[in-house]
Amino acid sequence: MDRTRVTRASVMTPAERVMARCDELARISSTEGGIERVYLSPEHARVNRLVAEWMREAGMTTRQDAAGNLIGRAGPAAGEAPALVLGSHLDTVPDAGRYDGIAGVLMAIEVVRALRAEALPFALEVVAFWDEEGTRFGRALLGSSAAAGAWDPGWWELTDAAGTTLREAFLDFGLDPGRIGDAARRPGDLVGYLEAHIEQGPELDEGDEPLAVVSSIASARRFRLDIAGEARHAGGTPYDRRRDALLGAAEIALAVERVCRAEHHIVGTVGELQIHPGAINVVPGDAHLSLDLRGEFDGDRDRVWRVIQNEVAAVTARRGLTWSAREVHEASAVFCDPLLQGVVGEGIRSVVPDRAGEAPTLFSRAGHDGMAFASVTGVGMLFLRNPDGISHHPDEAVSGADVDLGIRALAAAVRARAVA
Amino acid sequence: MDRTRVTRASVMTPAERVMARCDELARISSTEGGIERVYLSPEHARVNRLVAEWMREAGMTTRQDAAGNLIGRAGPAAGEAPALVLGSHLDTVPDAGRYDGIAGVLMAIEVVRALRAEALPFALEVVAFWDEEGTRFGRALLGSSAAAGAWDPGWWELTDAAGTTLREAFLDFGLDPGRIGDAARRPGDLVGYLEAHIEQGPELDEGDEPLAVVSSIASARRFRLDIAGEARHAGGTPYDRRRDALLGAAEIALAVERVCRAEHHIVGTVGELQIHPGAINVVPGDAHLSLDLRGEFDGDRDRVWRVIQNEVAAVTARRGLTWSAREVHEASAVFCDPLLQGVVGEGIRSVVPDRAGEAPTLFSRAGHDGMAFASVTGVGMLFLRNPDGISHHPDEAVSGADVDLGIRALAAAVRARAVA
Repeated sequence: MDRTRVTRASVMTPAERVMARCDELARISSTEGGIERVYLSPEHARVNRLVAEWMREAGMTTRQDAAGNLIGRAGPAAGEAPALVLGSHLDTVPDAGRYDGIAGVLMAIEVVRALRAEALPFALEVVAFWDEEGTRFGRALLGSSAAAGAWDPGWWELTDAAGTTLREAFLDFGLDPGRIGDAARRPGDLVGYLEAHIEQGPELDEGDEPLAVVSSIASARRFRLDIAGEARHAGGTPYDRRRDALLGAAEIALAVERVCRAEHHIVGTVGELQIHPGAINVVPGDAHLSLDLRGEFDGDRDRVWRVIQNEVAAVTARRGLTWSAREVHEASAVFCDPLLQGVVGEGIRSVVPDRAGEAPTLFSRAGHDGMAFASVTGVGMLFLRNPDGISHHPDEAVSGADVDLGIRALAAAVRARAVA
Repeated sequence: MDRTRVTRASVMTPAERVMARCDELARISSTEGGIERVYLSPEHARVNRLVAEWMREAGMTTRQDAAGNLIGRAGPAAGEAPALVLGSHLDTVPDAGRYDGIAGVLMAIEVVRALRAEALPFALEVVAFWDEEGTRFGRALLGSSAAAGAWDPGWWELTDAAGTTLREAFLDFGLDPGRIGDAARRPGDLVGYLEAHIEQGPELDEGDEPLAVVSSIASARRFRLDIAGEARHAGGTPYDRRRDALLGAAEIALAVERVCRAEHHIVGTVGELQIHPGAINVVPGDAHLSLDLRGEFDGDRDRVWRVIQNEVAAVTARRGLTWSAREVHEASAVFCDPLLQGVVGEGIRSVVPDRAGEAPTLFSRAGHDGMAFASVTGVGMLFLRNPDGISHHPDEAVSGADVDLGIRALAAAVRARAVA
C-alpha cells in the first residue's frame, strides 16, 4: 500500500475520503477518457482488490463471494451474530458517472469505520455488489440475485457483445459456476440491508433537500425487439416497395415515448438501436432495439407493455415488417421495509436539523440491488441529492457536503436500528 | 490455373460462364456467409488477380492502374487507336448481392471474347472499377473519379471504421498515392464508355421487359448528421428533463421519408444510425445518421435537402438537441450520350425481336461509375431486369436468359458504334 496515500487519506474527513476515492476508482476503466467497469472484467478484479484494502483499513475482514461480490465484515464473526448489511454496487454503465453505486459502498465503509468501537447487537457488513447495471450481459442485478439465492441457471448461457457466455466469464475470472449457491445468504444471518445511493433524478435538487427516505423501488421490465424488413438498394427501390426496418423502429421508439408520457409514474426508454446492414446506400433490413419500462406499480407497467405491443404490431403490419420481442429482465416493485424506512428517516432528521417534521420520501424509478436482496431481508434506502438529476453520464455529481450528511445519517440509522 | 475449371468454363455458353463466375466471386468475401468486398482489401487484390486471368484468357492484356482499377485491353495498343471502354465495378456494399457491378464486368469480358476476331476501328477495354459503392470510406466512385482525373486530394484523409486513412490504405495495398494522377484517362484516348448493370429497381420486372436503355443517372448527395443531446439515467429522468438524441433521430428519419414521398422522382434514405452510449438503461445522448438523397434533377434534390434541413432544425429545437451535417458525396445528374443511347437501343432491338418500336428507356436512380467517367468520355448504359427489384441484398438476382440477351445486345451495340 502506498504510504503517502494512507497518510493523506487518514487526515481527510470521511466525506473527503469518499469523494477522493470516487475519483480514484474513476480512473479504473476499460475505456480511455471515460468510465466503464463491467462484471467479471480485469477492472472488476482490480477494484475489488483496492476496495478490500480500504475495508481492511477500516477494521473489516474481507472476502469475495462465489459471484464476485466483495464483502467486508466488522464485529461478531458469521455464526456468532447476524449482520446488518450496508452496501451498493461497484460496476458501471458505459461512459458512466463516478458516484452511481460507488458512493454508497464507500459511504458504508466510512459508517463502519465510525461505528467500529461501538457495541452493537449485530455485526456490520459492507457488501459491494457486481453486477447491478447489467451492462455486460443485458441482465441486471446478477450479484445481488446470487446473494439472494435467486440465481437462474438459464443465465449461464447469456452472452456479452464478444459472444462470451456468463459461464465462460465466470471461469475466466477464476470463479466456479458450480459453487454459485455458496453466495446465497440465509435470512437468519441478516438483520436487514441499508443502501445509500444518489437519487438519479432531479426531485431532491428541485426541492432543495439533501437526503430522502426511499419508500419503494420501481418495478421494471426490459425487452429486446427485433424488427425484420428487407435490405434493398437505396436508389433503385421506390417507397412503396420498401420494407425499411429503421423507419419501423423509429415509429416504435416514438410510440414508446408517446404512450409512456400519457401515463402517470411510467417511464419507457429505447436505449439501444442497431440496424443492419447499416450502409449509407442501403435501405435497412433489420433493426434491433431495447425497451426499458419502469413503473411504481407492476400492474401499470404491464398494461403499458400491452399497449406498446399493440403499437408495434400496427406499425410493423403497416410497413410490411415482422417483429418479435423477448424479455431480458423483470423485477416487481419492491416496497422498503417499514422499520428500516423509519430508522433512515430518524437518521436524516438527526443531521438535517432545520427541517421540520418528516424526512422527504421518494419512490425510486431506478432499480437497485435491494430489489433482489429484498427476498432474503428487509431493505431500507437513503437517497442523496443529485445535482440536476444527471446520472449514467460523466457529469453525474454529488456534493461533498451532502455525502457528509449522508454518512452521518446512515450511521445514525444504524444506531437507531440497534435500539429499535 | 485449375484445369478442371478451364475445361468446364470453355464448354459453357457466355451467359453460363458469367453466372458461374458471379458465384465464384461471391465466395471471395471478408465476411463468413455473406458478400463484402471493399476497396484496397485483401479481397480486392484476390479478385483482381482472378478476373485478370479471365481477361487474359479472353484475349486481353491486363494491368492494374494507379487507383487499383483492373484494366484489360484487346485490339490496337494504347497510342495506336482509342478505346471503347466496357466496364462496371467489382467492390460491394456490406451483405451484398452477387451481380451488382460484377455481372457488368464479366459480361464485358464475354463481349470482348465474342468480338476479338472482328475488325473494329477502336480497341476494346474492360475496366473493373474500385470502389463504386463507397462502403469503406463513405465516399463513392473513387476508382472512376481517379480514371476521370478528378481525384480530390482531400480524400486522402478519409478514414474507414478502423481509423485507417485512404492514404494508408493505398500504401498497405502497395499503391503509391503520389502516382494517383497516372490513373487519369485522356479524352482523346477514348471512344466512349458502355456499362451493363442490373436495374436495382423493379421497373423492368413489372413491365415484363428484359433490357432497357438508360437515359440519365440520378443526381445524388450524401450527408452525415450528428445529433447531440444528453445521456441520462433511463429510470430517474422524467420526460421533460430528457434530451433524447435517438428520438430526435427517429423523427428526422421519418421526416426524410415524408418529405421525399411527397416529391416526384426524389428518394431519400437513412441507411446508417448509431447511437451513443447505447445501453439498455441509458437515455441516448448522441445519434449519428446518414442521409442519401437522389433525384432525376439536381435542383429538385437541392430544394428537398433545404426542406429536410428545416425539419431537422425544428425537431432538434423542440427536443433541446443540437445538430450538424456534413456532405460526404455529391454527384450531379449525368445524361447519357445520345449516340451511345442510340447504339444501346439498337443492340436491344436486335436481340429482343418480338418487341415493337423503341427499346424501353429508364433513368437510373442508382449511381454508377459513368457519373464520374462522363467527364472524360460519353457514357451509355444498358439495364438488365432485376427480379422484384431487389439489390444490395443477398437475394439480388438476374436470370441467365437475360444475361445472355444482355451480352448479345452489348456486343451488337459495340458493332453499331463501330459503324456510327
